[in-house]
Amino acid sequence: MTTYGGVEAGGTKWVCAIGNGPDDLHAVETFPTTTPAETLARTADFFAQNGGVSAVGVGSFGPIDLRAGRVTTTPKRGWANTDIVPVLHDALGVPVAFDTDVNAAALGEGRWGAAVGLDTFCYFTVGTGIGGGVMAGGRLVHGLIHPEVGHMLIPHDRARDPFAGSCPFHGDCFEGLAAGSAIERRWGKPGEELGDRSDVWELEAEYLALGVVNVICVMSPQRVILGGGVMKQPSLLPLVRARTRELLACYVVAPGLSAGLEEYLVSPALGDRAGVLGAIELARLAASQS
Amino acid sequence: MTTYGGVEAGGTKWVCAIGNGPDDLHAVETFPTTTPAETLARTADFFAQNGGVSAVGVGSFGPIDLRAGRVTTTPKRGWANTDIVPVLHDALGVPVAFDTDVNAAALGEGRWGAAVGLDTFCYFTVGTGIGGGVMAGGRLVHGLIHPEVGHMLIPHDRARDPFAGSCPFHGDCFEGLAAGSAIERRWGKPGEELGDRSDVWELEAEYLALGVVNVICVMSPQRVILGGGVMKQPSLLPLVRARTRELLACYVVAPGLSAGLEEYLVSPALGDRAGVLGAIELARLAASQS
Repeated sequence: MTTYGGVEAGGTKWVCAIGNGPDDLHAVETFPTTTPAETLARTADFFAQNGGVSAVGVGSFGPIDLRAGRVTTTPKRGWANTDIVPVLHDALGVPVAFDTDVNAAALGEGRWGAAVGLDTFCYFTVGTGIGGGVMAGGRLVHGLIHPEVGHMLIPHDRARDPFAGSCPFHGDCFEGLAAGSAIERRWGKPGEELGDRSDVWELEAEYLALGVVNVICVMSPQRVILGGGVMKQPSLLPLVRARTRELLACYVVAPGLSAGLEEYLVSPALGDRAGVLGAIELARLAASQS
Repeated sequence: MTTYGGVEAGGTKWVCAIGNGPDDLHAVETFPTTTPAETLARTADFFAQNGGVSAVGVGSFGPIDLRAGRVTTTPKRGWANTDIVPVLHDALGVPVAFDTDVNAAALGEGRWGAAVGLDTFCYFTVGTGIGGGVMAGGRLVHGLIHPEVGHMLIPHDRARDPFAGSCPFHGDCFEGLAAGSAIERRWGKPGEELGDRSDVWELEAEYLALGVVNVICVMSPQRVILGGGVMKQPSLLPLVRARTRELLACYVVAPGLSAGLEEYLVSPALGDRAGVLGAIELARLAASQS
């Protein structure tokens, strides 16, 4: 049986897996992201020692150059302009597919998770930063480079929230206001230590709803998936649903947008496995096209 | 030779054309949009009297229901819930394709205009309102309904611009701040009577750049086309380019985004014919699939 390899290439941790889907993962290994040489060698060893694979997919932290298969201008030390695809391809001799970590996660959710049967949707991850994978008409969106939903510019009421924002490029862009690192800097401690304080989570829901509304306006997703560590606060998703609905103000009317948006704004069904499973799906698609 | 019909179905005026492209338009007729019955009968007559067509494409004002081929909740008197496709199909007996006016214009620009050879781009029209057509991966984006870029929520500095916004749904959304009707209400007269006042056009460029940046972040277009009556002010496009570049703050780096964005943020190449030519292309695509 043909078996695929998936790599979730994160800036902090690196996940490799072999298998064909969520119910068929033969091997999974997670290790810290160290130097490029060490990390990529360990990746190649993992696939070689576990019986080999017919193709590998990589969902990578970014920004990336999709065509060259490399990470480009990352601030992560030692990783700027690092070839990923050429190195793994040389080591393994099989097709290596490459995309952003969030596009891979979107692909995984579309294949097995919260977006099965949909052709146009968005997967947000709200963690230390904010990223988004976008599927439109059944294809992952790349365009000029790849989506960078974290850097949208959204309303910021400085009377309500004087925090200047934490993005080193844009200050109070979406990520600069709503990512985990913004929460920590605004309130003086990380989200998981802030309990269910309504001031914290209502403000967070405001910003997340603004980001969701803008994605709805630009690409009319059939569903929006909100994942990442920040979304683990249980009160947050219902607040985002309620505020999104208020902000849309009944302008965009569709069956999927009715009632409380419970079916429209959802959590990832694959949880923390969306990225590596999506990478496996990237591999399968690459093998079927080669 | 196979010949196609195009209809640019506007809320104020209605344009019908027969032909195969910008250099091959056999007949063009423009008339005011009156009642649905009269307007659609006149459309059917136009095609019948000019020798018939093998398929018709309609780019319509909205919001629309793509599958049903109808205009839905428009405030335009007499037009709410009006069937377009079924009526024209019954009258003409040929395939009738249907999309938004702005998606049609995007399609036209992609086939013959400012986006030839690109698969991911956005066409904005900045007129009385603001609309946008989106092409991603070579396909027009529909998703849940269709893009509504005019209703994105963008930063609004009320110290600089106390105007509350003109959108009846959202107040100071993108359209509520930047459309032609917002300009007229804010300054007391329409844009074309405001000359080249720098306060007017720098503020307008600020809002348009915010909208462009958000579209760049969500779908990473290879190019953005800015059309519509408001863009006819000659100082405006260069101001939007300059402000977009500042707002991106070098975060999204790509060859196409270099220098002054002269190749990236552009005017429609088909001018006012983008909509009806795109409708002809819609017809051609429908005929090739039927």
